[in-house]
Amino acid sequence: MSGETSEQGKYVNPSGSFERDQNYLSTRITADGREGYPVEAGRYRLVVSRACPWANRAIIVRRLLGLEEALSMGVCGPTHDERSWTFDLDPDGRDPVLGYERLQEAFFARDPEYPRGITVPAIVDVPSGAVVTNNYPQITIDLSLEWGEFHREGAPQLYPERLRAEIDEVNDGVFRDVNNGVYRAGFAGTQEAYEKAFTRLFARLDALSDRLSRQRFLVGDTITEADVRLFTTLSRFDPVYHGHFKCNRQKLSEMPVLFAYFRDLFQTPGFGDTVDLDHIKRHYYEVHRDINPTGVVPLGPDTSDWWAPHGREELGGRPFGDGTPPGPPRPEEVVPAEHVPGHPVPA
Amino acid sequence: MSGETSEQGKYVNPSGSFERDQNYLSTRITADGREGYPVEAGRYRLVVSRACPWANRAIIVRRLLGLEEALSMGVCGPTHDERSWTFDLDPDGRDPVLGYERLQEAFFARDPEYPRGITVPAIVDVPSGAVVTNNYPQITIDLSLEWGEFHREGAPQLYPERLRAEIDEVNDGVFRDVNNGVYRAGFAGTQEAYEKAFTRLFARLDALSDRLSRQRFLVGDTITEADVRLFTTLSRFDPVYHGHFKCNRQKLSEMPVLFAYFRDLFQTPGFGDTVDLDHIKRHYYEVHRDINPTGVVPLGPDTSDWWAPHGREELGGRPFGDGTPPGPPRPEEVVPAEHVPGHPVPA
Repeated sequence: MSGETSEQGKYVNPSGSFERDQNYLSTRITADGREGYPVEAGRYRLVVSRACPWANRAIIVRRLLGLEEALSMGVCGPTHDERSWTFDLDPDGRDPVLGYERLQEAFFARDPEYPRGITVPAIVDVPSGAVVTNNYPQITIDLSLEWGEFHREGAPQLYPERLRAEIDEVNDGVFRDVNNGVYRAGFAGTQEAYEKAFTRLFARLDALSDRLSRQRFLVGDTITEADVRLFTTLSRFDPVYHGHFKCNRQKLSEMPVLFAYFRDLFQTPGFGDTVDLDHIKRHYYEVHRDINPTGVVPLGPDTSDWWAPHGREELGGRPFGDGTPPGPPRPEEVVPAEHVPGHPVPA
Repeated sequence: MSGETSEQGKYVNPSGSFERDQNYLSTRITADGREGYPVEAGRYRLVVSRACPWANRAIIVRRLLGLEEALSMGVCGPTHDERSWTFDLDPDGRDPVLGYERLQEAFFARDPEYPRGITVPAIVDVPSGAVVTNNYPQITIDLSLEWGEFHREGAPQLYPERLRAEIDEVNDGVFRDVNNGVYRAGFAGTQEAYEKAFTRLFARLDALSDRLSRQRFLVGDTITEADVRLFTTLSRFDPVYHGHFKCNRQKLSEMPVLFAYFRDLFQTPGFGDTVDLDHIKRHYYEVHRDINPTGVVPLGPDTSDWWAPHGREELGGRPFGDGTPPGPPRPEEVVPAEHVPGHPVPA
């Protein structure tokens, strides 16, 4: 989780509001290499956790653009201690490319005194073993705009120039009230701070729902960066944010337009195949002992209806524009079958 | 809450399971007075909290049977400290009949060394100021069977002899897996104990749903004690148990048969008019700091659909049998309008 590696308490200001540390390593990997890190196949490693919504954005964009060959991916486990995300899913507890046990090592290779949170997504320069950037909003944009040389044939345009202003505007409200808004609700230290976050969250969801009742996707008639960013919050809404973060006016499954929009994306290659429900639930419920002291992970919700027909085709739109959907995930990157949403909940 | 006055931790056994202290003051108030406490109008005071599902049973049965004149009611506030429920809703913080600030005083009047939880519902003998009984399963049965002299005209038979065996059998499973099952899930100290409670809860709800798909009420074709006991858990399900106790396979509102059954009862005089949503939510979220350390109370869920048509008339049944519904609540016992379910949630 971005900016979320140790005690949450330190992010709650005196008025009880959660504040996200938004200072990241912001060096960019560009086609022209002007910041010292040129786009190059095989040179970098994207480090993620499937639990984290900010990392999930990068996983999706990498899949949609077909960057799997050019940019390898290391996957941290869903839980972490106070110090760092770890490579505990790898056979010997070490990332096979970087050789690290803890993502922290890559941040310290960049700056031995690195003072901030050890966050995902992070892109690591493999030769030096140092993090280049963990600036997640820029990472996905750069995958679209700087890595074009390595895009697959048929890759969609997720951030086309003519829609950029509108995408930025939508993203701005979605970040403030939804992506980050759920955290502001969940980590609020006072009733007042919680209610403010809750009210803004659902007001924004109502506005998005209204917008999406008339058009299939958030901006234009194809999938864009805006859809990616909303999707990663919606996919965590019923499993985590509804109960754990008290975002409980309704479940997503009770908001018909948004739920159909969500299912449309979920059933699109590159989106749903990145969702690891087990990692998502375990991360939030096991790590946030300050709001879930027992660490018990809920068995619900039933997600079988995530696969139900969404009917959004009626609104027109062409998910990939003039492009095509991505093929299946690489075998080593397939989410384990038992972690895929839609399994019946035991009862 | 019955058996729920101080630290929940003490009810979690070494295997991580929540265990309810089921030792109560079990003296009975009977028509023949054989235990020293004869049924008598004006002699006793029923002390409740509207938050508590076990007390809510008694509030409903008293309403359905029209016992308001014969048996007065004192209402404690929704939250309490480690020692006792308190009469903090009363103008000067004292129950106007008993003169007590804390329900504990009535337990100590019975036994100065009273060692167990100070629980509601409790029936207090007004002349001596001492609790006669807090044995909630017997309290409602005795209101039906022993207080007949003071029942209103048209009062329903909630525990008729010919259905008693079946009511007892249904109640037994509902208590174990549902009424108490939600607590076992919510206060589980281990993942294993939680999963066991969750699985039994939803298996039972599925079985009840199946039963109620064919008949309007749980036993026979009229409202009985069995419906009262299930109702008080269902009315807390989406507001509290779904999120706070992690009973989240589905919301009640996502289980069509049970939700329609619930709405049928909710919309019946004597049931819904006893539900104080504000007290219910504040009690659980403010008191259980061990599972909700911030004490923040969720703004959701939206309960406006609790008033939607239920369509259960199609199954036949006669809610009050040969009797009639109760009239409106006494003016001083009306739930404040802003606490009644169905208000829009701010957004």
